[in-house]
Formats: sequence, C-alpha cells, structure tokens
Amino acid sequence: MAATIKAGIVGGAGYAGGELLRLLFLHPHVELAFVQSRSQAGKLVSSSHPDLLGETELTFSAGADAPVDVLFLCAGHGEAAKFLAENKVLAATKIIDLSQDFRWNEGTNTATVEVDGRSFVYGLPELQRERIKGAQHIANPGCFATGIQLALLPLAQQNILTSEVHVSGITGSTGAGQSLSATSHFSWRTENVSTYKVMEHQHLREIKRSLLSLQPDNQPDIHFIPYRGPFARGIFITAYLKSELSLEEAQALYSDYYKDHPFTIVTEQNPDLKQVVNTNKCVLHLQKHGEMLVITSIIDNLLKGAAGQAVQNMNLVFGLDESTGLKLKAAAF
Amino acid sequence: MAATIKAGIVGGAGYAGGELLRLLFLHPHVELAFVQSRSQAGKLVSSSHPDLLGETELTFSAGADAPVDVLFLCAGHGEAAKFLAENKVLAATKIIDLSQDFRWNEGTNTATVEVDGRSFVYGLPELQRERIKGAQHIANPGCFATGIQLALLPLAQQNILTSEVHVSGITGSTGAGQSLSATSHFSWRTENVSTYKVMEHQHLREIKRSLLSLQPDNQPDIHFIPYRGPFARGIFITAYLKSELSLEEAQALYSDYYKDHPFTIVTEQNPDLKQVVNTNKCVLHLQKHGEMLVITSIIDNLLKGAAGQAVQNMNLVFGLDESTGLKLKAAAF
Amino acid sequence: MAATIKAGIVGGAGYAGGELLRLLFLHPHVELAFVQSRSQAGKLVSSSHPDLLGETELTFSAGADAPVDVLFLCAGHGEAAKFLAENKVLAATKIIDLSQDFRWNEGTNTATVEVDGRSFVYGLPELQRERIKGAQHIANPGCFATGIQLALLPLAQQNILTSEVHVSGITGSTGAGQSLSATSHFSWRTENVSTYKVMEHQHLREIKRSLLSLQPDNQPDIHFIPYRGPFARGIFITAYLKSELSLEEAQALYSDYYKDHPFTIVTEQNPDLKQVVNTNKCVLHLQKHGEMLVITSIIDNLLKGAAGQAVQNMNLVFGLDESTGLKLKAAAF
Amino acid sequence: MAATIKAGIVGGAGYAGGELLRLLFLHPHVELAFVQSRSQAGKLVSSSHPDLLGETELTFSAGADAPVDVLFLCAGHGEAAKFLAENKVLAATKIIDLSQDFRWNEGTNTATVEVDGRSFVYGLPELQRERIKGAQHIANPGCFATGIQLALLPLAQQNILTSEVHVSGITGSTGAGQSLSATSHFSWRTENVSTYKVMEHQHLREIKRSLLSLQPDNQPDIHFIPYRGPFARGIFITAYLKSELSLEEAQALYSDYYKDHPFTIVTEQNPDLKQVVNTNKCVLHLQKHGEMLVITSIIDNLLKGAAGQAVQNMNLVFGLDESTGLKLKAAAF
Repeated sequence: MAATIKAGIVGGAGYAGGELLRLLFLHPHVELAFVQSRSQAGKLVSSSHPDLLGETELTFSAGADAPVDVLFLCAGHGEAAKFLAENKVLAATKIIDLSQDFRWNEGTNTATVEVDGRSFVYGLPELQRERIKGAQHIANPGCFATGIQLALLPLAQQNILTSEVHVSGITGSTGAGQSLSATSHFSWRTENVSTYKVMEHQHLREIKRSLLSLQPDNQPDIHFIPYRGPFARGIFITAYLKSELSLEEAQALYSDYYKDHPFTIVTEQNPDLKQVVNTNKCVLHLQKHGEMLVITSIIDNLLKGAAGQAVQNMNLVFGLDESTGLKLKAAAF
Repeated sequence: MAATIKAGIVGGAGYAGGELLRLLFLHPHVELAFVQSRSQAGKLVSSSHPDLLGETELTFSAGADAPVDVLFLCAGHGEAAKFLAENKVLAATKIIDLSQDFRWNEGTNTATVEVDGRSFVYGLPELQRERIKGAQHIANPGCFATGIQLALLPLAQQNILTSEVHVSGITGSTGAGQSLSATSHFSWRTENVSTYKVMEHQHLREIKRSLLSLQPDNQPDIHFIPYRGPFARGIFITAYLKSELSLEEAQALYSDYYKDHPFTIVTEQNPDLKQVVNTNKCVLHLQKHGEMLVITSIIDNLLKGAAGQAVQNMNLVFGLDESTGLKLKAAAF
Repeated sequence: MAATIKAGIVGGAGYAGGELLRLLFLHPHVELAFVQSRSQAGKLVSSSHPDLLGETELTFSAGADAPVDVLFLCAGHGEAAKFLAENKVLAATKIIDLSQDFRWNEGTNTATVEVDGRSFVYGLPELQRERIKGAQHIANPGCFATGIQLALLPLAQQNILTSEVHVSGITGSTGAGQSLSATSHFSWRTENVSTYKVMEHQHLREIKRSLLSLQPDNQPDIHFIPYRGPFARGIFITAYLKSELSLEEAQALYSDYYKDHPFTIVTEQNPDLKQVVNTNKCVLHLQKHGEMLVITSIIDNLLKGAAGQAVQNMNLVFGLDESTGLKLKAAAF
Repeated sequence: MAATIKAGIVGGAGYAGGELLRLLFLHPHVELAFVQSRSQAGKLVSSSHPDLLGETELTFSAGADAPVDVLFLCAGHGEAAKFLAENKVLAATKIIDLSQDFRWNEGTNTATVEVDGRSFVYGLPELQRERIKGAQHIANPGCFATGIQLALLPLAQQNILTSEVHVSGITGSTGAGQSLSATSHFSWRTENVSTYKVMEHQHLREIKRSLLSLQPDNQPDIHFIPYRGPFARGIFITAYLKSELSLEEAQALYSDYYKDHPFTIVTEQNPDLKQVVNTNKCVLHLQKHGEMLVITSIIDNLLKGAAGQAVQNMNLVFGLDESTGLKLKAAAF
C-alpha cells in the first residue's frame, strides 16, 4: 500500500475547491492537512459545502503554511501566481494549480511553462503522461481545453489535423464559478441559452500550443462558438473538420490512441452529457458525413475539466494507479 | 372608447417593473409618460428588458415628476414609503404601490391602511372590488398573499373558516426579485428545493387581516410552509382544513363566489402550475378527503401576484373593464 | 375594420395546434369554426390545453368539414398530405399547412411547390411577402429553417453568400412535439445535452432552396450541428462564414433588409434566448472576428417557428396588418 | 477481508436497477453474477445505462437462475411477487425486494410480513437494524416512506408522537420510474409543479405500521400532500406537529436516536435538497415555531430511498460494515 500523501488546498470554498475536497475525502491514500480560504477562514468546511455534513468537522484555515506533500491551488485566475509570489512553499512540495496562470506562455511550443524558476508541466495525461509522472509542478488544463484537446489529439499526433476545425460547445453554469452575476442568476439562466467569447475563448491558446507540440509544422485555424446552457454541470463539445479518414479508420485511430487511458472512452453510441456527469470520464463519439469527420466530446467540467484531473495528475506524480479514488458513481439523472 | 390614461412607473428596472412595462405597452388605453430607475437612469429600457427590443426606444428617467394620471410604485419594500415621503405627488394622481409598505398595519381589521394622510385600499378585487373602484391609492397584495386568500375567501365570507388551516406553497425564483444571492445562483437553485420563513412568512399578516374583515369573530391559525422551487415563475399553493362541507357544496360555494370575477377559475381537473404562467389567472381546485377540504390555488407570481393585479386594479379605478389589456397568451410550456 | 375570418384547425391537440388556438382566441378578426382532433374528439379543448380553462367551452370535433375561410393543418408530417388527399376542401378555402409536406420538392428553385393541382407558396414573409399576399395555399416553414434563413437571407439577396456556412443550433423540447420518447423524458432531458441528425437535418433542403431562389448561381455548403437542450421553448442559432463585409457594412445590410419586417430585429446587444420566448420575434445579432462574420438568430420555435408565423401568413393572405394578434407579452423568465 | 458476495439483479434496466448496478460495481465485496431484464435481454448493460460505458461489458440476461448469495428484485410493484411465485429461488439465497409487494399487509403491527412461507423484514435500518442483520428476506422501504419515517421515528420511540402530523413533500421525476407518461414529458414537467395522491399516498400504510410498532397505543393522523417537482432526483419533506418538546430537547432526542446511524444526520443549518443528491444520506433539521415542532427530512429517492438502502441492508445481512460501498461523492450541483 502506498504511503499517505499529505495534501493542502488553497482556495477551498469555491466550486473547484469543493470538488477537490469531496474527492480527497474519499481518496484512500490522502490525508488532508488544511483547507485554506480567505473569505471563510474559521468556519466549518461543511457550512460552504453542506453535502460534506457528517463527513468532516474540519474548518477553513487562514494560512496555508503547514508542510504538505502536495499543494492544490484553487485560488482563481491571477490569484495562483500571486499566492506563489507572496508565500514560501517548501521546495519538496508538489504544486498542482487549477488556474490558468501557468498553462501557457508566449513563444513556447512544448507543453511546459517556466515561471520564476518553477517549471510547470501541462497536466493533460492523455497528451504527456510520462512527463507528468516526473513533474514537480503541474498546470491543470482548462475545462473546454480538456474536452477540445481530447477530441483532436489523435489526429494531431498523426500530423493529419491539417484543415480548419469548427467547434461548438455548451457549458453548464458551474463553469463560470460561484461568483454572482446577471448571467448566473437562476431567473435569467433557467430555460435560456446564450453565447460568450465567440471565436475568442482564452482556452484556444493552450489548445493550439498542445497541438503544435504534436505537429509542429501544421497549425490549422480553430473556430470556436462557446454556449452557456441551462444546466449546472458538464461540457458538450462538437468538433468537425475535413478528413480523408474513413469512419472505421478514425474509430481505429482514436481507440488505439486512448486504449491505455482509463478515463477517455470511444463509443459508437450517440452520447448524451449526463453519461459523464459526476465522473472523471471523457466520452468521445465519431461520425463521418461526406468529407467531414465529426467528433463529439463530453466531460464533467468540474471533474475531468478541473478537480478530477487534478487528482489524476496527483496520482501520476506520486506513482499511484491513475484511477485511484476516481471510480465515481455517475449521477446519471 | 375610454380616454388615454397617462402612467408613470417608479422602479422600472426590476422584475415587477418589467412586467408592468410589458403589460402597459400592450394596454389599449395607457400612454407611458416615464419609467424611472435610479440605477439605470439614461439607459434604454430595452437594455434591462431585452424582450422589449423593437417595441420601445424609451430610456429610464432619473426623476418621476412628470404629471400622470396613475403612478405605479415598484420601488421595493421600504422604498415606496420613502419615495412618497421625499417626493411630491399631485393630489389627483392615483397611486398603485406594489410593495408591502401600505398593505397592513397594526390594529385595523378593515382592509384599508392610513399613512400620512393617504388612505390605501388593499387591492384584491376578489375581496373588495367596489372599494377599489373608488380608491385614490391602492396597496397591491403580495404574491403568496394573493394565492392563499383566493383559496380561503369563500369560506371566510360564509364565516365557516373556523378550524386550523394548513398551507404549503412553492414559489419560483422571480418571487425573490432580481438581486443576486446564494439562493438565486443558478448552480445552487437548479434541481434544488429548500424552505424559508417557515411558519413566519410576512404575508400571513395581510392574509389574516383580510379574513378577519370577512369573519370578525373567527380567526383560525394558519400554518404555512413556503418552499423555494427550481423554476422561474409561478406559485403553487395547497391549503387544507377540517370542513363540514361536502365536495359538491364546496365547489358550489367557490363557483358562486368567483362567478363574476374573470380571472379566478374553479376547475375539476387536477391543475398544474404552467396553466397560469404568463397569465393573470388564479386556478382553484377542490378535493375532499375524509373531513379535510383541500384547496389548490395557482397563480403567476409576477402577474396575478404583482404587475397583472396592479393593472387589474388600475382598470377598476379608471372605470375600465377589469380584463382590459390582461387577456394574455399563456406560455404553456 | 376587417370582416371576421372563419377559421378551422385540423390536429388541434398537439403543441402547434395549441399555440394556434391560443393565438386565434386573442385575434380580433378570427372566429374559430372548429378544432378537429382524431384522438381527442368530443373532449373539451381545455382538457388538452388547460391554460385555456375559463376562455373556451369548445370541444374537439371529429370532422373538419364545416365551411371556413382558412384551414390550418397541424396534422403532422405526412398527415397533412394524407388529409388533403382524403378530404374535400372548398376551392375558396385558404390552406395554411404547418407540416413539411409542401415546403419543398425536388427540382425546383422557386419557393413554390405544386402538389396535386395545388400550388403552395413557401410562407416566409421575410423572403417573399408579396407572393404570400396573393397565395391560396401556404407551406409554413420549419422552425430551424426559419431561424437559419433569417440569419442568411440578406447575404443571399446580395449574392454574397458564397463561402461555406457553419451553423450550430440548440432547440427546446417542444420542437420534437408531444409524443413520448426516451429523449423527451424529463429524467433524461433535464440538465442534459445531445445532438441529432448531425449534418443531415431535413430543414437544410428548404433552406438551400430559398437561398438558391435569391442567388441561383451560388450554392455554398451549409454544415449544421443541431443540439437538443434542456429547455422547453426556443431555438438559438449561430452561423458563421467568411465574408468581406465589415461589421458596420453587415449591420447596415441586415438592418436595411429587415427594416420593413416587424418581427425581425437586428440588435447590437448580445442576445439571449428568453428575449423572444412567447413572442413572434426573431432577434439577429452580428459579430465580426477576423474574416468571419458571425450571425446569431433566435426565435420561439412554436411561434415564429410555427403557429405565430402561420398567423402572420394568414394576416398577409387576408390583407390585414401583418402584426395583428401577434403583439404578445414575452414570458421573459 | 470479507468473502465475495455473489449477487443477481432481476429487473436491471430501470432506474432502481441502474442505481443498484452503479453501486454494486463499486462495492469491494460484491461480484455480479447476472443482471436480468425481460425487455433488454441480450443487450449491453451500457446501452441502457450509458454512464457505465467503459466499466462493464456485461449483457442483460433473460433468466435469473444462476445461483447467487443475494438476489435483488427491481421488478416493479406486483412483478416481484409474481417473480417469486413463478421462479424457484434457492433457500439459501437472501432476497432484497425494492417493490412494495412485501412491505406491508393488513392486520400486523410488527414490521415483518409473511408471504407464502417467506418472512420479509422491513428494511429500514434506523427502525430495526438488529432484525435486519438476521433476516433472510428484506422488503426495502418506499422513498417517501423512508424520508417521512426518519422524520418521525425518534418521537414515536418515546411514545410522544401523539398529535396530528402534517406533511408536505416534493419528489423528483425519477420517483415515478422510467415509463413514459404525460407528467414525465420534459415539455410538461420543466418549470412545473403539481400534486398527486393527495392525502392518499400508498406509503402512508407502511409509515403508520412502523410507528405503531414503536408506540402501539398511539396512532395519530398523518396528512400528506405529495408534490411533483421539476427536478430529477431527491425528496424534500416537511413535517410538523404540536409538541411539548423545546427545540433543544428535540435536537437532543434526534441526535441521540441517530448517533449510531451513519447515514442519518441532524443539522442546525437550513438544509437544501442537493446536499444529499447522489448520496445515501438523510439530513434532518428541526425548528420550533410556537407549539409546532417542524422537521425537515431530505433524501435521494434512488439511493437512501431505494438502491442505496438496499445495499445498506445487504451489508447488514452479510455482516459487513453498514457503509461499505456507500461512501459516495455528492453531485452537489
């Protein structure tokens, strides 16, 4: 049996922090040393995450300086970099950051980012599992970025992702975090649909960088329409592009690419989002219409798109089986 | 044809104000003089209420002092009284207030409230239509208060509302207004249920006062469990009490009581909330189980429970047919 | 004032039939002669459409042979053609069919379909209002077909719809009608997303035919991903294509094209679906990103996408103002 | 470590069967011998329950006669009794039935039902855990029955449940199973509310029998208004009655009663349904208003109200820790 991993969380009162807590409480090899929250310091963790009632008497801490084996940063975009600038973290502590602060920088086409003497490996196991295993610091991918990359990696690895890619994707409300805004109000969002950041979603940067790391000589345009949908959890993505592969060839390529990746599953059934809600899975489905190859990719934005993938990365970094603590009962309904 | 009524709205950027605007734009005898909003002054009305795009180029005004025949106050609880204290309103102007500021005060059992020399008639047409017709100032009832009273008035009028009344009711999110809060966040509210103000909802005061005005010698306890439901519009109420009436007698009593009231309908079909959504109707349904008489009452909280009833009251005050401008296409789905 | 139009409905128990009933009851110049339904003959109309309780005592008829000025066919795909084959309709009676039976046939590129000696004019007023005014028989467009065409017509009319068009669109559950199926079950559909008929939606045929009627020498490919969303009413469409127009030129082109069409509105605000729910409007919004022109188009599938457009066509055919009976209060929430 | 339990499921294609499958696949001491389904025999289990894709290649069997240690009957009301009448089950096989067929019969006030020589112990661990441990056959309680009993047991055990009890409760759509009906159609149910079986819900029988087993001399009336709500999972119950207990006394009584029951939790926070969704928990909350003691009780109808409680009972019957395989990540959103 593996030794116990001591873990700390920075920013534990938000959505990603809450999911991480739920997972780590169930993880057989993790002991939680602290859960920090600026806004909730001193309060019960179960007051912010009432589903944890009966499972923990832990309170949020103000500080995050107890020594731990792994530190998860759920502090939010910009806040993660700030935290590391202002706080000392022991050199031996592994860091897994869920913000976008260390996912990408200008002028590199390998999926590793250097910041202030730290080297952050981009934590998409299906792209670079071996590099993650040896990493000291992990930049956990964005939710849309995860779903879209998993739809495209097998093509890029074969250097055949060469024509324009057209992507539409719909995200649930938890993707925007728990801050209150006009578009997060129930009265507005229920039974409603809208788009945002049309053609300009920030995740396109990390997606393009990853694809470039696989096929440095080809960089097709990616056009992306992100939708907000009237549901809480999950991302449903459709991508299509001109491809010379037959359906059977494409299915064989994708099945082969993902055959050793436990969470990414290629299916011939037409998928629906709730298949993956409350799991760490990505389900992929392929269709061919004329010369267009159409790829559907669905994930739970808070799990495979955030906290679940963070735990998957932790498992890899600490030499555990990749699925440890991540065999989750789907909500299904 | 009736002359045109010049109307002004104070607090037009909120939910009730928006509904009132939608209704008044369609009303054949109303001309909107101004729509005031402190927070949105100078902006297009359609920027706050985008469904009105293409129907009006009106902007919100900062002031509310243009002379009008009727002034609707949608300013919010506490703000209505403050507005009238701080602003001069012409003596000839009728006032219809949608807040709770003038619905009730201590120590009266007639449904009229005197404040600062103004006399506010409680605007529930099914309780006191004649008094409304002659009123100068109207206090528009609360949403739960409307639904619960319509369930009980026929019994009180016969002085047979004499045993304890047990009420449960579920309200949509628009009942709490458009302010942002943890319980109005989509991620929280979708697929969720909770209770609030159990046994202590403030609408019980105006309900009890109205019932007392009909049967001064009987004042049964009313126990009320208000639920928050995962939907935007509507209130579904179930009330029951011990009654000696047979089902047929009860149906006859209710049908007779409401026969001249165009919006309150007694049905033998088991009702569902969406029957009344986006209409000014109240649908009532009666059942008898043992000695218990069970009454279902459903309304749209923003229409019969707020803006629709305000227009109904305006119609009565100005001598129009009660239904003018209120024959609305139900949303149905 | 216009004379009264006597109207009959075939297939009045379904979703489109119900919406049509709601509209016709409120229409100032229509008298309903009968509402036929095979499955509900003899029952109260309000038993199928309980929101109509209190508004009508009408029962569904078995037959549809009373003489009327206009006959609406809401019988369903395939059933409309069958009805006309099996029943005699007076030559003077105008027919407005809501099915797809007469919208399209092989080998024509004018938007009129000849069947069994009847000539059906394709009823999209924004495409060919003048031809509709003189029509005896109308084929009412499909819901997705309406939303997509309104997004593209101004470009086609200028003969500049010349590059591939990429469309994604999300429809509510009422689009699939009221028949029960696995994907219409609440437990399945709530908080869920899926796709269907990817790249092969049948509405593409009528869309392409209309575009071809405007620009016979250009027929770009249209790629269409239809989504099922967890909401009841509405369609939200995003279309994009390479275009040499600047944003300002595109806005000017669209505003000019639709300036005399009362229901199609071009806005600079980022739209959301509920703006148009329970109205007959189409709201269009334009963006330019690099060389891509992105067009958002939203409609209520049951109104502008079905029954509302049918009434709009009736108004045109009978010489009424196009908006008569169609100024509807939006549900808004 | 416990030996492996061989389990079979009859009726595995429905909602309860699916949940049971999800739980048993994750249970460390269970091996699934077969999953029978009449309608789906021969098909992949993952075709009915697509969230299980990637976790099992199992197909539904037509028969249910392989020898097993425990047989779960998810066949539906009436079908369970029929199955046992028509099929031979080994005497050594434990049976856990999720239907209502063996929960209750006339004329007994102990919570055990004798049918055809089999003795079914009512499987509510918080009522009679010791009796369950020694049982051969278990009748798993109904969902509303579970939630309401957990709200009332501590009072009955003290013989102080002596005044009328008023209960309202709201259930999600999965409570009605996966059969298609007008009230399970998404277009109808979304944003809608209705009641059913008012004052006459069949679960009242098993509730009253359990309470009588604790306080044979007192049998107060229970009035119950069941609501259908627009959500998929969960039951939210409010019960109130006159009680002489102070709030502190009531909290002490409930906390003490449930202190050794791992899934039933008494909280001082105002609860919301999603706290328990996708868990086996029941959360209870107490309030005192005047002389009324108000108890809130929330469960996931498919887990603590069905499949979760069935596994809890299996654990008890086979001498495992009661929580084995039931520490589930809440869906939370």
